[in-house]
Amino acid sequence: MSKKKSKTKSKKTAKPKAKSQLRQELATGDWVVIATGRGRRPFDPSKIEPAWTEAEIAEQSRDCPFCEPEKSSQEEDVLIYKTVDDDWSLRIFPNKFPAFNRPLGGRIVEQKEGPYTKMDSVGYHELIVTKNHHNNLGKMESLRVAEVLDAYQTRYLDLMNKKSVNYVEIFYNHGKRAGGSIYHPHSQLIAFPIISPYIQLELDGVERYYKKHKRCVYCTMLEHELESGDRIIYENDDFVVFCPFASRAAFEVWVMPRSHSPYFERILDEEKITGGKALSEALRRIDKVLGDPAYNFYLHTAPCDGKDYKHYHWHIEILPKTSVWAGFELSTGIEISTVEPEVASKKLREVSPTLSKIIKDLQ
Amino acid sequence: MSKKKSKTKSKKTAKPKAKSQLRQELATGDWVVIATGRGRRPFDPSKIEPAWTEAEIAEQSRDCPFCEPEKSSQEEDVLIYKTVDDDWSLRIFPNKFPAFNRPLGGRIVEQKEGPYTKMDSVGYHELIVTKNHHNNLGKMESLRVAEVLDAYQTRYLDLMNKKSVNYVEIFYNHGKRAGGSIYHPHSQLIAFPIISPYIQLELDGVERYYKKHKRCVYCTMLEHELESGDRIIYENDDFVVFCPFASRAAFEVWVMPRSHSPYFERILDEEKITGGKALSEALRRIDKVLGDPAYNFYLHTAPCDGKDYKHYHWHIEILPKTSVWAGFELSTGIEISTVEPEVASKKLREVSPTLSKIIKDLQ
Repeated sequence: MSKKKSKTKSKKTAKPKAKSQLRQELATGDWVVIATGRGRRPFDPSKIEPAWTEAEIAEQSRDCPFCEPEKSSQEEDVLIYKTVDDDWSLRIFPNKFPAFNRPLGGRIVEQKEGPYTKMDSVGYHELIVTKNHHNNLGKMESLRVAEVLDAYQTRYLDLMNKKSVNYVEIFYNHGKRAGGSIYHPHSQLIAFPIISPYIQLELDGVERYYKKHKRCVYCTMLEHELESGDRIIYENDDFVVFCPFASRAAFEVWVMPRSHSPYFERILDEEKITGGKALSEALRRIDKVLGDPAYNFYLHTAPCDGKDYKHYHWHIEILPKTSVWAGFELSTGIEISTVEPEVASKKLREVSPTLSKIIKDLQ
Repeated sequence: MSKKKSKTKSKKTAKPKAKSQLRQELATGDWVVIATGRGRRPFDPSKIEPAWTEAEIAEQSRDCPFCEPEKSSQEEDVLIYKTVDDDWSLRIFPNKFPAFNRPLGGRIVEQKEGPYTKMDSVGYHELIVTKNHHNNLGKMESLRVAEVLDAYQTRYLDLMNKKSVNYVEIFYNHGKRAGGSIYHPHSQLIAFPIISPYIQLELDGVERYYKKHKRCVYCTMLEHELESGDRIIYENDDFVVFCPFASRAAFEVWVMPRSHSPYFERILDEEKITGGKALSEALRRIDKVLGDPAYNFYLHTAPCDGKDYKHYHWHIEILPKTSVWAGFELSTGIEISTVEPEVASKKLREVSPTLSKIIKDLQ
């Protein structure tokens, strides 16, 4: 302890800087801080680390375990998509290093350890691997992305009715800085027995909103976004791409189906085309504006535990790694973003023509 | 879409690997996955990036804004701790780049934007800076850490009764990889109007547990931890340091007062000494076992909104950056850790004598 302590109150408090805003997420009720202007350090996209460094790409391109999975002692495929010339375009196999282990049969029993509860972490953990070593989802042609959505749906439909499965989480980690350990493009699917806290938060919010307004909260959100246009990035017949009002990270982007549907697994073939296009547009624009940043995206859909979730509205959330969640975020669950979603969406909306547009123009 | 699609179900499914476990946090009810053994990639401490690289330290040591704050246009001090020779040992001033802006007076009003709600993000954002440029909280003598706790308390007591303040969050970011932007050791304090979702989760859990068991959930936890000893790292008269049963990250560590107290701000002078020692032991051991990793720690204490929280139990949580939360964690809120807390605590418990012990031995 200090020997001598002196307190000196400042005579004048400095002038308040540009305003920060608290914004509430419409479904969950969670608050985020949008701290912009000269009150905060300005956001500098050039300071965002790339998804993978050149050195990491070089290292990951020697003996890639996913280029020829059959040669790298991967688990056996559960599904293969083939091209006309009988090569593979996409294949799915169980993760060699699963976070959830395949059930051995029998009931999953909660066990006690003193006051605590634990249970075997059973479920299915699969990898959805596309052929080209460098063409990640943000780079590949949108029809390839549609094929990926088709694979998601196929595996979803197979796993959703397994005894130990109440939720199927599908996600994609792009870049080492987004937690990726293998460079070769792959999505992951984990089918597991519990309803996760974040989905529960949305489900509760959806019901709360419905009770009060007799309407789906996400339909309301979409209607307002389309009306105001402030945060819209891209839209087509079936999907709208926008920055959410209460973005948790700078350049967060959501891809949402226009028409109300709780269940991703009911997506139609034509919606895979338009959905693939929408997801592709979102990722390509993020890639372009932020210079190939690391990002995660994931699908939020209604649980498959047999209950009715008719007020839910499935969608995809994309979180670029534009900042590190530090002590405040980890402690409170309140994220601080330094870019207004209105500014981010403007940049993403106005970015020059996409690759597919260029290809089309050249044809 | 692929022209030809063929589904080949694997004939045999590979043998299940070492078991993963789901563990439930006693207070919040949240689940984590502890995925260890040969089912997962083994944890390798040498792969953890350092808090700051040599180059970053060199860069941050030229013109450090906190070594002589009066020369770097920082805001005026609100509190200074002085040494016997009238130098400063610790000083506190408002953050130049606040996430929350000081209130201008008047009521904070919720505003509408379409279906959304927003409000001015008002509050107080202060920096608690210790003198030595390199001696971070994991390196400094434990009596210096006690002084830091004293500073936390002093500012807490001043800010807790401000009109726009319902919660005071105190946290520390160690390392660029933990979201730190300035190398010079500093804690941060944000006093703000809302009760954060994570604290609310704990408050709800505490009440739920009390209703059922007529007991503080954290007292129960502590009693079991002390009885089993499996996850204990260090203890003294007033504090216990342990890895929580449902650790969200490898080597997560909690520092908890032995006796039940909801309110950090009521900490006694002698508890600052023992608390400083406990926090110091925790950080020093993490530093030693993981090789100066980045980490965040933060204080969880009862809100100061005038309500009664007598069943809460304040404590400090330390989260080393031992992994990146990727798509699954961000989507579900379920964290996957690859090291059992029993293994982590053993390593942290058995690490060689601490600096203060060495100093004492040399005297």
